[in-house]
Amino acid sequence: MLPIAVDAMGGDNAPAAIVEGSLRAAAESDVPVMLVGQPDALGALGHDLSGVEIFEASEVIAMDAEPGSSVRRMKDSSLVRAAEAVRDGNASAMLSAGNTGAAMAAALLRMGRIKGVSRPAIATPIPTPSGPPTILLDAGANADCQPEWLVQFGQLGAVYGRVGCGIERPRVGLLSIGEEETKGNALVKEAHPLLADFDWGRIGAEFIGNVEGRDVMTSDVDVIVADGFTGNVVLKTLEGGIKAVIAALLDAFGSSPEAAEAAEKLLPTLEPLYRRFDADSIGSAMLLGVKGVCLISHGSSSADAMMNGVVQGAALVETDLVTHLAAAVAPD
Amino acid sequence: MLPIAVDAMGGDNAPAAIVEGSLRAAAESDVPVMLVGQPDALGALGHDLSGVEIFEASEVIAMDAEPGSSVRRMKDSSLVRAAEAVRDGNASAMLSAGNTGAAMAAALLRMGRIKGVSRPAIATPIPTPSGPPTILLDAGANADCQPEWLVQFGQLGAVYGRVGCGIERPRVGLLSIGEEETKGNALVKEAHPLLADFDWGRIGAEFIGNVEGRDVMTSDVDVIVADGFTGNVVLKTLEGGIKAVIAALLDAFGSSPEAAEAAEKLLPTLEPLYRRFDADSIGSAMLLGVKGVCLISHGSSSADAMMNGVVQGAALVETDLVTHLAAAVAPD
Repeated sequence: MLPIAVDAMGGDNAPAAIVEGSLRAAAESDVPVMLVGQPDALGALGHDLSGVEIFEASEVIAMDAEPGSSVRRMKDSSLVRAAEAVRDGNASAMLSAGNTGAAMAAALLRMGRIKGVSRPAIATPIPTPSGPPTILLDAGANADCQPEWLVQFGQLGAVYGRVGCGIERPRVGLLSIGEEETKGNALVKEAHPLLADFDWGRIGAEFIGNVEGRDVMTSDVDVIVADGFTGNVVLKTLEGGIKAVIAALLDAFGSSPEAAEAAEKLLPTLEPLYRRFDADSIGSAMLLGVKGVCLISHGSSSADAMMNGVVQGAALVETDLVTHLAAAVAPD
Repeated sequence: MLPIAVDAMGGDNAPAAIVEGSLRAAAESDVPVMLVGQPDALGALGHDLSGVEIFEASEVIAMDAEPGSSVRRMKDSSLVRAAEAVRDGNASAMLSAGNTGAAMAAALLRMGRIKGVSRPAIATPIPTPSGPPTILLDAGANADCQPEWLVQFGQLGAVYGRVGCGIERPRVGLLSIGEEETKGNALVKEAHPLLADFDWGRIGAEFIGNVEGRDVMTSDVDVIVADGFTGNVVLKTLEGGIKAVIAALLDAFGSSPEAAEAAEKLLPTLEPLYRRFDADSIGSAMLLGVKGVCLISHGSSSADAMMNGVVQGAALVETDLVTHLAAAVAPD
């Protein structure tokens, strides 16, 4: 397998956590890794880098930089070079915990769109109490959408779910404010019949109609389709909501010596739960619709998260996901 | 004070929980109550109803009935009669745990809009880990919105926050997908400058720009403005997310005798937390912009929730909220 190109300079904890996680993925899972970034900064971390490839890139796109102009201007940035490595056949996938918009723009501009794809979309895994995560897309690539794009998001998400995540027959739902097909805003009401008309069996999936916000964190649906504005709001609302509940819990646990002692005993039980719901643990988002595997990790990604991302990227490459996506959106 | 007209027939637990909660509010808080519904059904519950007024209404609008046509057709329904009681000066407020859309339609059609209000909006309190709830509006009345409506939602929400909820100088935020004013979908990008241009000082509030999903459950903002589609999705997403986390916690607590024992000791600490985040405890939503106080409770409202709703309604009536709302939206 060609190496996974990791943007070593992107992320709140870059380059330290990025490099550490990548090296661990290379060592423990035998995944070939290409670190893209400034050799001096990478070398200064003091790791033995002999087991990974280094791809020099002199510039770094800041986390809060304007995505489009940064990607156009900073041609020697780690993000742009990582995308080029995939385009040029030097890497099999790219992974970044950096500026999400810039990662998207770099992938889109350098790799290009899969033929037939109107707009690539970000597919984000949302944890559920049990079972596999729900796939939410678009989680932020396209703030304003056409009804037809939502159908394609559903197709891309279904194939990603089936081929990339091993869901046997993904159930695709349209995010709305009521289960009836007459419920929703204008976009959703126009998209519903288009989604209902598509032959989901052809891509090994099914359309289950509208779903609601309360279904997002359940196992009642596998792929949730939304415009990128609503999807991004949902994602961040859940992140904030879960964080608030966990913070309140920890507060309560520390409220008295008795509570602390009892909580201590619960730790082994609560830790896996925490890991399941923690934003940092739930896997990377994937930009679906570009000609290559592009994984986008949370900005706050730890070394663990990066290691998981590299392994996840390699697994996706092995499924030949992009070929399957292309087949799904190809005109009949 | 004129009585609070309670739709005794609306809600998953109607009429039993509705009547029980209303009677307790009347007894414990000395709030005058008018139960609107079928006298036979109310009498059959076996309570002493001598302390409250009974307003006969022969019909019941089902929880899943189509709102507009039900309200038009079922003129003797408890919901329509409750709204009429307010309109006719026989009640000071209405409260229903029934069909939300129908409650909205009944209030709108019978009470009418406050002069100058384009579209009434549902303001829903969202719990935060500490401090008062955040007020989210529109939480579902208007799936498709004009930018100007969002400005008015902000005005209505700010006055509700200051006068109705006692927030000294409400901070109003526009829900978007980035803090910069250039971030958002077309609606939000058009609404932002309109919100920024309004003289918030005139109504004792301030505009703090865009906020994101992750701010919803924090104390960083008091009033969150959104179109009714996004607002409703946010509300239901949080309900579902918190429910999922709590269910997973309870599962973990029951996973072994040791865990159960430790959890038992934490109960006194966790119970107030549970009450804070439980959908049933966080207060009723208010339909802002109609000529009267109209509170809408969660369909699953318990007797406790209804008691709180009645007391909340009486408190709002005493603030003369509707007059303040009318002053805020009046043309300069």
